[in-house]
Amino acid sequence: MVLRIGVIGTGAIGQDHIHRITHSLTGGEIVAVTDVNSEQAHAVVERESLQAKVYDNGHDLIQADEVDATIVTSWGPTHEEFVLASIAAGKPVFCEKPLATTAEGCKRIVEAEMEYGKQLVQVGFMRRYDKGYRTLKQAVDNNKVGEPLMLHCAHRAPSVTNFSGDMAITDSFVHEIDVLRWLIQDDYVSTQVIQPRRTNLAEEGLQDPIIILLETKKGIRIDTEIFVNCQYGYDIQCQVVGETGIANLPEPPSLQMRSQAKLSTDILVNWKERFIEAYDVELQEWINSTVNGEVHGPSAWDGYVVAVTTDASIEAKQTGKIVPIEMPEQPAFYQDAKAEYTV
Amino acid sequence: MVLRIGVIGTGAIGQDHIHRITHSLTGGEIVAVTDVNSEQAHAVVERESLQAKVYDNGHDLIQADEVDATIVTSWGPTHEEFVLASIAAGKPVFCEKPLATTAEGCKRIVEAEMEYGKQLVQVGFMRRYDKGYRTLKQAVDNNKVGEPLMLHCAHRAPSVTNFSGDMAITDSFVHEIDVLRWLIQDDYVSTQVIQPRRTNLAEEGLQDPIIILLETKKGIRIDTEIFVNCQYGYDIQCQVVGETGIANLPEPPSLQMRSQAKLSTDILVNWKERFIEAYDVELQEWINSTVNGEVHGPSAWDGYVVAVTTDASIEAKQTGKIVPIEMPEQPAFYQDAKAEYTV
Amino acid sequence: MVLRIGVIGTGAIGQDHIHRITHSLTGGEIVAVTDVNSEQAHAVVERESLQAKVYDNGHDLIQADEVDATIVTSWGPTHEEFVLASIAAGKPVFCEKPLATTAEGCKRIVEAEMEYGKQLVQVGFMRRYDKGYRTLKQAVDNNKVGEPLMLHCAHRAPSVTNFSGDMAITDSFVHEIDVLRWLIQDDYVSTQVIQPRRTNLAEEGLQDPIIILLETKKGIRIDTEIFVNCQYGYDIQCQVVGETGIANLPEPPSLQMRSQAKLSTDILVNWKERFIEAYDVELQEWINSTVNGEVHGPSAWDGYVVAVTTDASIEAKQTGKIVPIEMPEQPAFYQDAKAEYTV
Amino acid sequence: MVLRIGVIGTGAIGQDHIHRITHSLTGGEIVAVTDVNSEQAHAVVERESLQAKVYDNGHDLIQADEVDATIVTSWGPTHEEFVLASIAAGKPVFCEKPLATTAEGCKRIVEAEMEYGKQLVQVGFMRRYDKGYRTLKQAVDNNKVGEPLMLHCAHRAPSVTNFSGDMAITDSFVHEIDVLRWLIQDDYVSTQVIQPRRTNLAEEGLQDPIIILLETKKGIRIDTEIFVNCQYGYDIQCQVVGETGIANLPEPPSLQMRSQAKLSTDILVNWKERFIEAYDVELQEWINSTVNGEVHGPSAWDGYVVAVTTDASIEAKQTGKIVPIEMPEQPAFYQDAKAEYTV
Repeated sequence: MVLRIGVIGTGAIGQDHIHRITHSLTGGEIVAVTDVNSEQAHAVVERESLQAKVYDNGHDLIQADEVDATIVTSWGPTHEEFVLASIAAGKPVFCEKPLATTAEGCKRIVEAEMEYGKQLVQVGFMRRYDKGYRTLKQAVDNNKVGEPLMLHCAHRAPSVTNFSGDMAITDSFVHEIDVLRWLIQDDYVSTQVIQPRRTNLAEEGLQDPIIILLETKKGIRIDTEIFVNCQYGYDIQCQVVGETGIANLPEPPSLQMRSQAKLSTDILVNWKERFIEAYDVELQEWINSTVNGEVHGPSAWDGYVVAVTTDASIEAKQTGKIVPIEMPEQPAFYQDAKAEYTV
Repeated sequence: MVLRIGVIGTGAIGQDHIHRITHSLTGGEIVAVTDVNSEQAHAVVERESLQAKVYDNGHDLIQADEVDATIVTSWGPTHEEFVLASIAAGKPVFCEKPLATTAEGCKRIVEAEMEYGKQLVQVGFMRRYDKGYRTLKQAVDNNKVGEPLMLHCAHRAPSVTNFSGDMAITDSFVHEIDVLRWLIQDDYVSTQVIQPRRTNLAEEGLQDPIIILLETKKGIRIDTEIFVNCQYGYDIQCQVVGETGIANLPEPPSLQMRSQAKLSTDILVNWKERFIEAYDVELQEWINSTVNGEVHGPSAWDGYVVAVTTDASIEAKQTGKIVPIEMPEQPAFYQDAKAEYTV
Repeated sequence: MVLRIGVIGTGAIGQDHIHRITHSLTGGEIVAVTDVNSEQAHAVVERESLQAKVYDNGHDLIQADEVDATIVTSWGPTHEEFVLASIAAGKPVFCEKPLATTAEGCKRIVEAEMEYGKQLVQVGFMRRYDKGYRTLKQAVDNNKVGEPLMLHCAHRAPSVTNFSGDMAITDSFVHEIDVLRWLIQDDYVSTQVIQPRRTNLAEEGLQDPIIILLETKKGIRIDTEIFVNCQYGYDIQCQVVGETGIANLPEPPSLQMRSQAKLSTDILVNWKERFIEAYDVELQEWINSTVNGEVHGPSAWDGYVVAVTTDASIEAKQTGKIVPIEMPEQPAFYQDAKAEYTV
Repeated sequence: MVLRIGVIGTGAIGQDHIHRITHSLTGGEIVAVTDVNSEQAHAVVERESLQAKVYDNGHDLIQADEVDATIVTSWGPTHEEFVLASIAAGKPVFCEKPLATTAEGCKRIVEAEMEYGKQLVQVGFMRRYDKGYRTLKQAVDNNKVGEPLMLHCAHRAPSVTNFSGDMAITDSFVHEIDVLRWLIQDDYVSTQVIQPRRTNLAEEGLQDPIIILLETKKGIRIDTEIFVNCQYGYDIQCQVVGETGIANLPEPPSLQMRSQAKLSTDILVNWKERFIEAYDVELQEWINSTVNGEVHGPSAWDGYVVAVTTDASIEAKQTGKIVPIEMPEQPAFYQDAKAEYTV
């Protein structure tokens, strides 16, 4: 059975997903697309040689009989609306981050989904599908480092432009928020933001780097450096310090060179290259589980937790205070959902 | 357009290819299978839920109208026969190594293919599709180490059973023979085999390790250690020493651990794991190029060169002498064939 | 000219220094020793075949004509007294940490030394003499990473016994306090202590690990994990994140092994082994500079800064608050003193 | 007791040894020097502030009453003469390589020493004193890799000038000849030299690199790449492949840098820096053992073995043949001599 997919939003990420579903993955077919820029939607259909209808808007696409499931890759502020419409239509939906632009929006989605009575929503946090993070999680799960006590993380990019103050949290750190709680199966209770000496190589007015300190229910402490003008490369680090040992996220494979008085391996500079395989795995597993009527990936609840943690971290950055993160208990409805993975 | 594939031989590697074409790759469909063990062929069709006809023998399968191309994964001594039959039928064929069990057999295939007038044959040397080797080739091609002068290689496996003396050459070293001349775009002119102190951990009577020394037309010297009872892991090393620097084949990615007074990464123990992605890429690219009526991978000529080099190396092992490798010039017919690859 | 040295305190560290001055270093001779345990002092003289007089107490030793300079390696609470006596006698003194057990004690030493009008005191912070830290400082000084913005450090030991709560600060972190401000030529303005999930492998009642956050005048942020029951080894990490790159303290040299499915290097388990060469360099440089009538190493002022920072960090641990570190400006008297070093 | 040393030859290496004995090491004193360039000898005495007499020639120096032991660092062709004279005088002698310029010369020294009845001669092969090689030997001795089967070595320098063809063997490989048989406690039985594609970056007419293959009595095979215009650095590699694992000579310690899209450590470019600590240890241990009337380091016999192996390797280079290395059994006289070392 082939999953017939409608894509809402044919910008960069939408085009990427259309391309990989059509050319690299199996079991899915793009049968419908829409975009506020209708011309672009038509152009994508032509360029990718899709057998797909171009719809006037997301709602019509969601309602269309030939659409089994939707992918929401439109402008962030429209996500909530289309996810809610997909739930109302009883159709599985893969929504790129953010699930909604506010914690309240996420909460409405959670409530709608629970009312519907069956999970339909998956959020596009691709790091859970990265082979490195999965290997790391496997090591943690298999007690290779004992009980985790601390995580030391870094999220670095060579440089950014048009990057406002909170985007270090909403666009960069958001990935750590999701993947780290998945990694250690724990929830956050507080957040603190430290603003180190500012690099002179950031755009005027941007505080870069920042360090975010999270505390979990179990007392695990997480420090994450977000440094988006680090110059030297795109570099994601994650170190789990446990009771008996330490595990580090693998470095991407690279030639080892001896040249010009250096023994070196390459560091990536492009974020896309870093997680390109993770995107493929993410969408393939979404197709597979959706065909089976299941959701294995990041749920609406996960998207809600991320939104609450993001809001608290922004407040922590603004106030310099340690800000509590208050979440209701995860409803039983969401507790069965587990990422199924093999490395 | 979907490539309709017939598979001759449903043993382990045949089953692997059927599974990946059906479940992981795109653009190919298994429509016919055959095996000397007819029951096994039927079982595979059922287990993989194939819409495939089971043929009595390879020749009938090759002739079948619904078969666009064949994959030969039967017992080695039958390869030549089925490859020749595919050529006679004008059908593209992917043949696992060896192309034929003798250099003469390979030569017959080369001649048949040239007479047919169009390349149809690809040989299953998967290392050319390994991301690491491709990155290494890219570095060499882009002059990152200057002109190559020496290659230091190692091919190690934890242990083997039922492994006779020449298999270190015919089954293990055969991969280096193919991939190294592809890597440096050169041809071999002599071979020498050194028999070091024997490990006590090999089966009675097996000389293990051996070191093989190859010389190329350009004078590049290649030393390869083959050590198939090295105990510690499955470990493939390739170091290119050039005029200005040195590049090493990447180590497979791994967690870095700090534990029990060691800072360590894992070494694989299973050869399948090492090249599993290469197999996927190999077959996907074969499907893609075959659909376009082209052969980009290891050609019949490459298979022939490997067979001649293998024979000379076996003689070198038996005699302890430096044995010349004499090949006719590569015909123009084969010179356009180039591996197309991106890393 | 040979420096004639008197040693006050012939316990473990005193014996080590006596041994290295007598057998490994040049330019120094032990001519006098004393210890509260007079028998032990005599035994050391005999075992090391010293031409040294055993004095009844430190004050007599300091006054002795044949003593050019003193080394204070007695019980911590006696340090202040003997350092002050050495200053009063106008004799150079090398004092193991702590300079005094209180910040006030350190301040008294600073004042006495300023009144005397010439630096005489060096404090035994050996990390400044470690080749790794010196190489790191050289990289920072030579702008290899641009302006430093953050330091991520770790100080880990396999296990401890009889270790009370504040010793993680007074005995372990104290080394980072000294070496890091020397490394970045900056001073601390605040400290915060985080208490992560406690390892179950520490002695009952001991909070282990802790994380200490320091802020400097320039805004550099330093996080240091102190984890003294980490099980896996004695491991000192220091990473300087600068505007253009990152430098890590070198790992101690080690064989690289391939064995049992691991590619590994050794991690030390014994702290003594980690800094043994640093102790040799420290004492040799102290002898050399003392003969020249100079102090190049950690000064009384440095000892005072460490004491103030230690006190503030203990308060921060007890209160959970961010505690300001208030120090007067470094007097001009101490500003000329510079560590002289070559890597 | 201080060892009173006379130095014959005050060129570069002679000056280095004088300096280290005078300023870094303990237990030795330079009391006499001589050089064909008498002015230079005087200048060294003055510059190093030695209390040393300048002799007209080596023989007078050897005979001088105040000289306990000699260091021969004169021009190579004079080594044999001065070593024989030291033996005749019954005085311990440390001779830089070569012990003599011919195997016959070495043999004469061996015979003279045996006739004298007590070992007096140590040859300056400093690698045995390198901490890395010692750690590697300790691993081999402690069975960390099982029985050694193969050694893969490389000896690379950035570039050379005025370097004639055989110097790759007599000046570079000579170090491997000595240290490798010490490492594996074995002797050589044959040698073969391979001449790979020549780098264009060597001086006109110089064959560079070469590969030398040695076989030992136990059947261990050693391949060593000598590449003295490798451009990228001074790089000494030694890998021991044993029955159960592999050990590599440690890389010199270095900062790990993240900069400009590279994760790198430094490679040395200067050979002196690589072995500077080994020279210190070598001379210190020579002083210590000489004071005890013993020889622990490379003996006259070792120097003789090196000379024979060097000659055979030069013949192998010239002829392209596998050349046998024929040595008499090591006399019992030399079998008790063992390098005493701790890492």
